[in-house]
Amino acid sequence: MPAEAAEIRYLEASIREVFASFGYGEVITPTLELESVLETAGEERFRKSFRLFDERGDVLMLRPEMTIPIARLVATRMQDREPPFRLGYFANSFRPTKPQRGRQSEFQQAGLELIGSDSPAVDAEVLAVLCRSLEASGLKDFSIALGESSFFRVLLDSIGVNSEGRDAIFSSLAARDMVELAAVVEALDVSGDDRQAIIDVIALRGGSEVLTAAKDLVRSPEMEAALKRLALTYYLVTRYGFAGRILFDLGILRNFEYYTGIVFEALSGDLGFPIGGGGRYDGLLGRFGRPLPAVGFAIGLDRLHIAVTGQGGVPIPANSGMALVGGLDPALELAGELRVAGVPVTTLARETAAAEALSLAAAADLRWCAIPEGDSFRLWDLRIGGEGELLSREDLIGKLGG
Amino acid sequence: MPAEAAEIRYLEASIREVFASFGYGEVITPTLELESVLETAGEERFRKSFRLFDERGDVLMLRPEMTIPIARLVATRMQDREPPFRLGYFANSFRPTKPQRGRQSEFQQAGLELIGSDSPAVDAEVLAVLCRSLEASGLKDFSIALGESSFFRVLLDSIGVNSEGRDAIFSSLAARDMVELAAVVEALDVSGDDRQAIIDVIALRGGSEVLTAAKDLVRSPEMEAALKRLALTYYLVTRYGFAGRILFDLGILRNFEYYTGIVFEALSGDLGFPIGGGGRYDGLLGRFGRPLPAVGFAIGLDRLHIAVTGQGGVPIPANSGMALVGGLDPALELAGELRVAGVPVTTLARETAAAEALSLAAAADLRWCAIPEGDSFRLWDLRIGGEGELLSREDLIGKLGG
Repeated sequence: MPAEAAEIRYLEASIREVFASFGYGEVITPTLELESVLETAGEERFRKSFRLFDERGDVLMLRPEMTIPIARLVATRMQDREPPFRLGYFANSFRPTKPQRGRQSEFQQAGLELIGSDSPAVDAEVLAVLCRSLEASGLKDFSIALGESSFFRVLLDSIGVNSEGRDAIFSSLAARDMVELAAVVEALDVSGDDRQAIIDVIALRGGSEVLTAAKDLVRSPEMEAALKRLALTYYLVTRYGFAGRILFDLGILRNFEYYTGIVFEALSGDLGFPIGGGGRYDGLLGRFGRPLPAVGFAIGLDRLHIAVTGQGGVPIPANSGMALVGGLDPALELAGELRVAGVPVTTLARETAAAEALSLAAAADLRWCAIPEGDSFRLWDLRIGGEGELLSREDLIGKLGG
Repeated sequence: MPAEAAEIRYLEASIREVFASFGYGEVITPTLELESVLETAGEERFRKSFRLFDERGDVLMLRPEMTIPIARLVATRMQDREPPFRLGYFANSFRPTKPQRGRQSEFQQAGLELIGSDSPAVDAEVLAVLCRSLEASGLKDFSIALGESSFFRVLLDSIGVNSEGRDAIFSSLAARDMVELAAVVEALDVSGDDRQAIIDVIALRGGSEVLTAAKDLVRSPEMEAALKRLALTYYLVTRYGFAGRILFDLGILRNFEYYTGIVFEALSGDLGFPIGGGGRYDGLLGRFGRPLPAVGFAIGLDRLHIAVTGQGGVPIPANSGMALVGGLDPALELAGELRVAGVPVTTLARETAAAEALSLAAAADLRWCAIPEGDSFRLWDLRIGGEGELLSREDLIGKLGG
């Protein structure tokens, strides 16, 4: 529907402006991606994606996400350029699913990838761009749940949890099923202390006090390094003025095998699903032959639209459209001049009585209606009604375009 | 690639602004369309489109074009609204093909449909929006080849050419194969006069003198009405100031069975393919249960990009990006203020010597580079080079943002 499409495009344009202001260039990649590319990326989770064949018999997939196509682009077509790369995208992706609120087979995403730097400053920049983008979209109530996948990964390694146990922990965490999670942890063949350590890490949520509490759970230099890195990233985010948006949650793992450092999700009120998320994935580019560290995020535009609509709506200017009717020649000329002055104008194709013109303008949800009357025009403001106002062409252009 | 993507987005944004100024709202439809919808539209030509299955076993197709999905939208989801509908779109469509210049399996389109009016004034409006859109994209050398499908159709009916003969004429015209066309016409089982009439109509190309010459070929009241209508449309296009862009070509038929009135193609120089095209299709909406007359066009954005690039390039402002480097705190704060002032800023993640910073900024194709120096900043204009200029924060913001 046009009103909804206009709102989605407004969100997209707002985010595009933020991305550009941080120096991110936009890339456009094909909607159809070779299945072999997704296999190279080692992403089992896309097995169920939409598949089809091209003329050569190669298996194509409707892209399930944008990070892998961009990783391949950087590794192949941008090989003659020096990192870092700051790349943004606005694209639809596809995953077979039963449609429900916030979940559709085809979804619009706005996202970015910063490829070629493993600095915490870059992690902070990406978090800041995410916060700026959500603010620019008109979202007021939101927070970024921030975790660190390597902190938890190293803990599980040091405890000796096997891959089966890790998968079970991850899938219950992903489903946010805390009852199942407790059962999974209980069933692990590890000591009571280790069990408690796993539960303690997952329970670490809140403000910057989490960083202090997490120190007690450090068991190795790697865990200490991961924590220090997270603290530095947080300090740098505060320099961008977004400290109040960050909520630590060390139980956030998202796609566990894929992420190697920070992981985060954008949450808003009681929405029931994240608006977006991302993290650091230093292993992916190497699979395409160009090992580079990387961090990025994606925002679901349809989800963002739901969230913004629930918080006062998308802040687009009210419809200032105008219906211009009557004798063709003077109407068309006035319409042209008004368009140059920035006023959207719909013309009617024929001479029309005022009453009919006004009802057509109202049906089309336009604010203004003008009809030639001698050398002048009669102008109605449909929010006011009444007799209208008789104006010269110049005065009418000045009134609407000024 | 980012530079190309930025140009495509610029073309899209320019056209979006023109569409909005004429009162066209934007619609977004699914990329996957049910095969049955395309069958309802009676479009044999899409038999070769990309196909896949959804979970319920329904056959889906990657949409080969946008007019049919919009026709369905108007006939079903917009049933409670009154025509006319002015709807625009910016979308990718798909047709299996061997990629070549101006022809790809996935292509970006900008288009519109005006549904619910059969007035020549509306035909003229659509032609005017097309011309305005191409001008706004920075295209200088282009013309609109304008034909009238019913004029030719009625002629063939009156002569008694069977559907086989019509198909043969259409396919040789579509391939612009004049040798084959001559053979096809020669083989028709009709009188010499009739044969000559067909050849004469197809040969009618040029300025408004075509309208006069076509009068001699009129054989029925319907042909006379079609010609009068075309002349009125042309007169109205002149009122929009685009008379110089119109080139009559009564041999333009495009998709013969689909169009019922004007048909047109946007041509530019010796490009070898049209940049876009459209026409009046009064029969389509009825197939979805809401018979309404309609007219529309689509512009191929990739083709437009090729054409504009060949005519001086896309008129986007030169890259005004800036690299800001050095001590994190003052740099981040300055970066934030510059972004508010409309200057895109990339920050470097660490303290950097001037020489390295300048070479990184040059590699990233940025114009400005700034490094903190005491309480001030040293600013280089990379187009000039040299020692740079020492500026206070305020002066730097004023210089770049003003």
